[in-house]
Amino acid sequence: MPILRLALAQTNPRLGDFSGNISTIVGYVQRAAAKGADLVAFGEMALTGYPIEDLATRPEFLHLARTELEGLALRLLSAGLGSTTVVIGFPNGPISLPATNAAHSPTAIAHNAAAVIQDGRVLGIYNKHHLPNYSVFDEHRNFRPGDSVMIVHVADCDVAITICEDIWRDGDLMTSIADVHPGLLLVINGSPFEREKDEVRLPLVRRRAQQTGAHVAYLNLVGGQDDLVFDGDSFVVNASGKLLARSPQFVEDLLVVDLELPASRTNGAPIGAGFTVVQAGRPSPFHVALRTPSPVERNDDNREQIWNALVLGLRDYVEKNGFPSLILGLSGGIDSAVCAALAVDAVGAERVFGVSMPSDYSSDHSRSDAEDLAERLGIDLRSEVISDLVAPIEAQLALSEIAAENLQARIRGVILMSLSNAEGHLVLTTGNKTEIAVGYSTIYGDSVGGFAPIRDVPKTLVWELARWRNEAARRANLREPIPEASITKPPSAELRPGQLDQDTLPEYDVLDALLDAYITKRMGRDEVVALGFDAFTVDRVIALVDRAEWKRRQGAIGPKISEMAFGRDRRLPVTFVRS
Amino acid sequence: MPILRLALAQTNPRLGDFSGNISTIVGYVQRAAAKGADLVAFGEMALTGYPIEDLATRPEFLHLARTELEGLALRLLSAGLGSTTVVIGFPNGPISLPATNAAHSPTAIAHNAAAVIQDGRVLGIYNKHHLPNYSVFDEHRNFRPGDSVMIVHVADCDVAITICEDIWRDGDLMTSIADVHPGLLLVINGSPFEREKDEVRLPLVRRRAQQTGAHVAYLNLVGGQDDLVFDGDSFVVNASGKLLARSPQFVEDLLVVDLELPASRTNGAPIGAGFTVVQAGRPSPFHVALRTPSPVERNDDNREQIWNALVLGLRDYVEKNGFPSLILGLSGGIDSAVCAALAVDAVGAERVFGVSMPSDYSSDHSRSDAEDLAERLGIDLRSEVISDLVAPIEAQLALSEIAAENLQARIRGVILMSLSNAEGHLVLTTGNKTEIAVGYSTIYGDSVGGFAPIRDVPKTLVWELARWRNEAARRANLREPIPEASITKPPSAELRPGQLDQDTLPEYDVLDALLDAYITKRMGRDEVVALGFDAFTVDRVIALVDRAEWKRRQGAIGPKISEMAFGRDRRLPVTFVRS
Repeated sequence: MPILRLALAQTNPRLGDFSGNISTIVGYVQRAAAKGADLVAFGEMALTGYPIEDLATRPEFLHLARTELEGLALRLLSAGLGSTTVVIGFPNGPISLPATNAAHSPTAIAHNAAAVIQDGRVLGIYNKHHLPNYSVFDEHRNFRPGDSVMIVHVADCDVAITICEDIWRDGDLMTSIADVHPGLLLVINGSPFEREKDEVRLPLVRRRAQQTGAHVAYLNLVGGQDDLVFDGDSFVVNASGKLLARSPQFVEDLLVVDLELPASRTNGAPIGAGFTVVQAGRPSPFHVALRTPSPVERNDDNREQIWNALVLGLRDYVEKNGFPSLILGLSGGIDSAVCAALAVDAVGAERVFGVSMPSDYSSDHSRSDAEDLAERLGIDLRSEVISDLVAPIEAQLALSEIAAENLQARIRGVILMSLSNAEGHLVLTTGNKTEIAVGYSTIYGDSVGGFAPIRDVPKTLVWELARWRNEAARRANLREPIPEASITKPPSAELRPGQLDQDTLPEYDVLDALLDAYITKRMGRDEVVALGFDAFTVDRVIALVDRAEWKRRQGAIGPKISEMAFGRDRRLPVTFVRS
Repeated sequence: MPILRLALAQTNPRLGDFSGNISTIVGYVQRAAAKGADLVAFGEMALTGYPIEDLATRPEFLHLARTELEGLALRLLSAGLGSTTVVIGFPNGPISLPATNAAHSPTAIAHNAAAVIQDGRVLGIYNKHHLPNYSVFDEHRNFRPGDSVMIVHVADCDVAITICEDIWRDGDLMTSIADVHPGLLLVINGSPFEREKDEVRLPLVRRRAQQTGAHVAYLNLVGGQDDLVFDGDSFVVNASGKLLARSPQFVEDLLVVDLELPASRTNGAPIGAGFTVVQAGRPSPFHVALRTPSPVERNDDNREQIWNALVLGLRDYVEKNGFPSLILGLSGGIDSAVCAALAVDAVGAERVFGVSMPSDYSSDHSRSDAEDLAERLGIDLRSEVISDLVAPIEAQLALSEIAAENLQARIRGVILMSLSNAEGHLVLTTGNKTEIAVGYSTIYGDSVGGFAPIRDVPKTLVWELARWRNEAARRANLREPIPEASITKPPSAELRPGQLDQDTLPEYDVLDALLDAYITKRMGRDEVVALGFDAFTVDRVIALVDRAEWKRRQGAIGPKISEMAFGRDRRLPVTFVRS
């Protein structure tokens, strides 16, 4: 049986940065070729970064991507890497169909595609069949589906190429691939991290291996892109589903494995309508002995995975957008403490600036806990007492009660934004998922900021993460970054004397469980009550959640009167490089 | 030839408000029945309101919609309206398919459907074939496509039923309908207003009439729903495309017409696979003589249409969400003047509150123009000088230049939000589309607010609308609402002495034309330059636009770690009623 030496390049592209991404790609092909790889694979849209959102609908961007793809092929050739077969994701367009006959979106003019490159040329292109349009995916909006099955004949083996969602759907594509009996099914992905998602990916891939009788190589991107974090975690299983090799999560990696595969049945010759066979051939018998590594031990501590995802997401937002530093308010509470610790893990203590902004209602411990935190983390801390800033406004407008409470939070927001304008920091929003869900925050107050590290982290998980991070420090014989007092004291917004979150909200363990049922599991009101929650609490929380949508969209709603409004129609990535 | 008396009920549903919507529906059926109508049609999702966004993925909501639909049928029966045939849009679900075999979204569990009701029962259901997923539409996310063609046999005629996007696509559905030779093609719509969209709708419908040989009735919703404005404008054409009748835009309406149609070919009997034939029959020969009205004169003044769309969008956001009143900052400039005039047209002067917030850099005319405006509009105006509020913060933080400029805008934002909290007003954001596009505003400053009436209106159009509104007042012998000075003076943010918008930005006519080319027409940089714009200006504006995406999404980005995050994953309507 022939042996295919396969290299999976788990890269972290920067969206739109063709020049930087191509340098990375050439570097990985060089390393893979030095190890004698026959085939080097890169992730979904690894040429451009992913997801490209509305850029997929701009002919200029698509033309550029095609030009850059062909430039990459020539650059590999001139670097002496022409004989290595490269598979890489890119947006394939612009294509045009009569608008009234559009199978999908009238604005979709590209395929989500994979190119096969060798000898300075694009030998073939596979267009993704199945376009996900749920959760974070809007691919029916931006892409058209493909309909041809792609087999690459390389190193005397047949390799079927697919992209991400393709393997999540039963039906024609999987059946057609099984009928061809390829030795390897290669699936390139842009698959975002989710808690416990790996518990779904590996069983699915094992099922596809058994179903197609092929080895399956699952290659994922890595890195943060706006609100998505790609976790890498690429791996290879054999035809019976056994895990042969695995890359680590959250870092770039090159995984090179020897796979003993059945001999090609196609021999690179056409096999009929609906199939594209690409004859890539073998560079030259590899002369470097390879020790296939054991699969990387996967750390199954859910908290560690989440922490690493949050750190990577924050780091890449900061670095890819070129922010010099971060600033955040430190209240002594758990949310800001965890955000500060994440910030330090992401970009280093010297680039993180804390601001303590006590008011007349701030407890002594809110200042001392903030000081303790800053000292433990080694970050800059300044104090800006807000009393003399709040008082003139409160007096002039004769504010009291909720308006006066919110005023304090808003002046803190003004201070952070002012320091951002004056000194160039990115402001971190410290709100957690629970408070965002129920609207327990001040619009333009504690919700200000350009990036929200724990926006998708429920309050109870914030505490868990804090405890885990301290444990991890203890295990490494390092000082715990988060003051114990910040973890154990009852949460408070401290906008009036003696105020506690639980004056207004249910206990957080109850609230988070209720939100999980109502929001994530989409249960109805009666179903949630049937789980054992108090009916009055359920109704109150549902009302808060539904109403909070209004707070979450402040300033972003107004009547649309044109073909292209902002928000709904125009969906540009924030983090991208204009080439 | 038989005569079908058709009633098109152009209603303004309130999203989720089954009880209110059903009262409206029963009222319209009553009126139509009193006029002897055989068939009464309501718009797309008229039962629930449209678009329902993520509510389509909640089984609880779908079960409720079905229950309410059946309740509607019984209520019509008990009101003595059972013999009238009613066609109404609703979400048809929940349906279930194996997740891995999902043809579209794994979370889509409903059809976008039309029910045919008679005699207290749901006689048949048509499921929309073509799901738009471009522009404001995300229907591949929330719905599954149908595949059966629906013919209703009523009053000895055959009526084909379709929904919105169905008639925008060439192909099988239109061909299948033409093959059956129905007398009438009824299409129920939720089609949002867009400038000059009627120039597309009517020709398309005429083409479908000629293609199918049928009369076509085009029925649209009316009303504001978050950032969408449905403009009504329902109409009927005969088989040669002649306009027979038309409803007005922007108001509810009942259009009743007699159509002389070819006799039924189906006679209500099945006609084969892929077709659903519903036997609705005729109530009783109508005894009320009907004078079919001439088509409503369509006002083709683009500015008047836009003004009316903005007024309706604002009014419905305020009323459907139950806000008592509106507050906005009045700078004396054109944007706030137009927003104030729109607000008065939407909800009346007594519910609109203006705040003048002069600083040390405010010109004398900024105060006097604001006073003039308030006096013309008859709205409340208070003055809050910001100097003494800004000074302590500027001093304590030692702010200068851009940070000090933004501080003034942010204190104005704090004042508006404080008054909103204290008095219950909804804050209007006065920013226009041009400044949002290039990011020419202060985050959390002039951009604060819950609704932005001119968010999609380019600056040059703001001026045009102001001139048109004054002209309209003159024509009606009323006082012009907008001070001439606000229209003619050069725009300025007045954050430093002598500052003008054009110190920083190109002239607005140039800028708006450039933005139209780059954003709406999706032209590439070189194409925009080829239109004759200065290359330096093009590059500078493109850089501003791309960077402004970051400002537009402040506070809304953070790493996603769960199955259901806010923003991307969860897309709830703001304006809706929980039933």
